[in-house]
Amino acid sequence: MKIYYFLLLFAIISCNTEKVSDKGLIKKILNEQAAAWNEGNIEAYMSGYIQSDSLRFASGGNVSYGWETTLERYKKAYPDKETMGILIFSEIDIKLISDEAALVFGKWELERKSDHPWGLFTLLFKKKDEGWRAVHDHTSSADY
Amino acid sequence: MKIYYFLLLFAIISCNTEKVSDKGLIKKILNEQAAAWNEGNIEAYMSGYIQSDSLRFASGGNVSYGWETTLERYKKAYPDKETMGILIFSEIDIKLISDEAALVFGKWELERKSDHPWGLFTLLFKKKDEGWRAVHDHTSSADY
Repeated sequence: MKIYYFLLLFAIISCNTEKVSDKGLIKKILNEQAAAWNEGNIEAYMSGYIQSDSLRFASGGNVSYGWETTLERYKKAYPDKETMGILIFSEIDIKLISDEAALVFGKWELERKSDHPWGLFTLLFKKKDEGWRAVHDHTSSADY
Repeated sequence: MKIYYFLLLFAIISCNTEKVSDKGLIKKILNEQAAAWNEGNIEAYMSGYIQSDSLRFASGGNVSYGWETTLERYKKAYPDKETMGILIFSEIDIKLISDEAALVFGKWELERKSDHPWGLFTLLFKKKDEGWRAVHDHTSSADY
């Protein structure tokens, strides 16, 4: 009988470890995205998103589809390091929905010389062959 | 061998039928929510959300937690039928993430006497004992 308890315990630990690890992998991607942004590298920032036409990016009342379109949109809105400022993600909550999907919610801030815009984001991450990638981004801004 | 193909076909059809049906159930809830809103019944509108303290409602830069808190927030922001206006949901996209979770994205509009606010929403629906319920709502407004 002991062996069954041992196997059960092992299964529980493995299962929990995997879940912690998935959350850790997603957290790592968000950290890498913020670091890339703060180096002025929008392409590297965008590597957290699925490189596909199916990517959906919603902000305020705008929706854009596709990795390339989203990249161009970012480049246009943030043409230099001064407009990019320092990006800070905080209050991040990652909820695993299945083995291959997670909902990520948090706060974004841009520390810039002239202003300090901030708001909230909801991301749907999917586990792909290349790793966890955001497939849907909905961002809102605080009225300040 | 034929019986296996028949069973396989049956399994595929059952599976697809269930998925179509889940999307239909969610669509029905959204329609009922809009109808309730347009009758000035915020409590009935709120029945599409999970009646739990875990409900998360994000809008602009604000986050509130819990069904009761969200209801009070709505009542305060929309004290009468004139401020409530006519709610229209459109461009609704429902993606099933698992058998028990779906991501819903769409556009909201309020037709009111004096203005016409609109924006986008992302909802995470979960299948609960009482039916599909939104557990996370992230709403943004268009700058207009």
